[in-house]
Amino acid sequence: MMHRLYFHRDSKRGTDGTYAWLVDEVRELGEALDGNNREELEKEFADVIAWLASLANVTEINLEKAALEKYENKCPKCKQSPCQCSF
Amino acid sequence: MMHRLYFHRDSKRGTDGTYAWLVDEVRELGEALDGNNREELEKEFADVIAWLASLANVTEINLEKAALEKYENKCPKCKQSPCQCSF
Repeated sequence: MMHRLYFHRDSKRGTDGTYAWLVDEVRELGEALDGNNREELEKEFADVIAWLASLANVTEINLEKAALEKYENKCPKCKQSPCQCSF
Repeated sequence: MMHRLYFHRDSKRGTDGTYAWLVDEVRELGEALDGNNREELEKEFADVIAWLASLANVTEINLEKAALEKYENKCPKCKQSPCQCSF
């Protein structure tokens, strides 16, 4: 979805520029967490995931595959579900 | 998936602590972008999305719903697909 929508634009911006946008959106998410506007908070979560998806597209990483490979079904550290790590 | 794996731990850590972890993972992703280890880069993407999911769980936001509502099928600014915004 994000690839079709934005790839032509993201690829022009490049990795560094897209990463800088992601960092900015994460900062905005932090600000929304301090507020009490649920709708705004929901939008900021959407923005972070959108920019993360854009960054994955630019760097040719399959984000869904990456997440599933590392986390599906069990914690990658303790191999348990729920996680039983003691940190 | 992330809820079942980690919610008991995330909810104990709280919003601020979970956000701080997210910021740290985004920094590590930035470092991996500067390197040339694809496997490491893939893992860092997975970590960012995992912590974003944890933060969404702690704050009781449905991450998938938030993303789909804002971005499905068209750009939320210009309403086009692909996006035609001039920024």
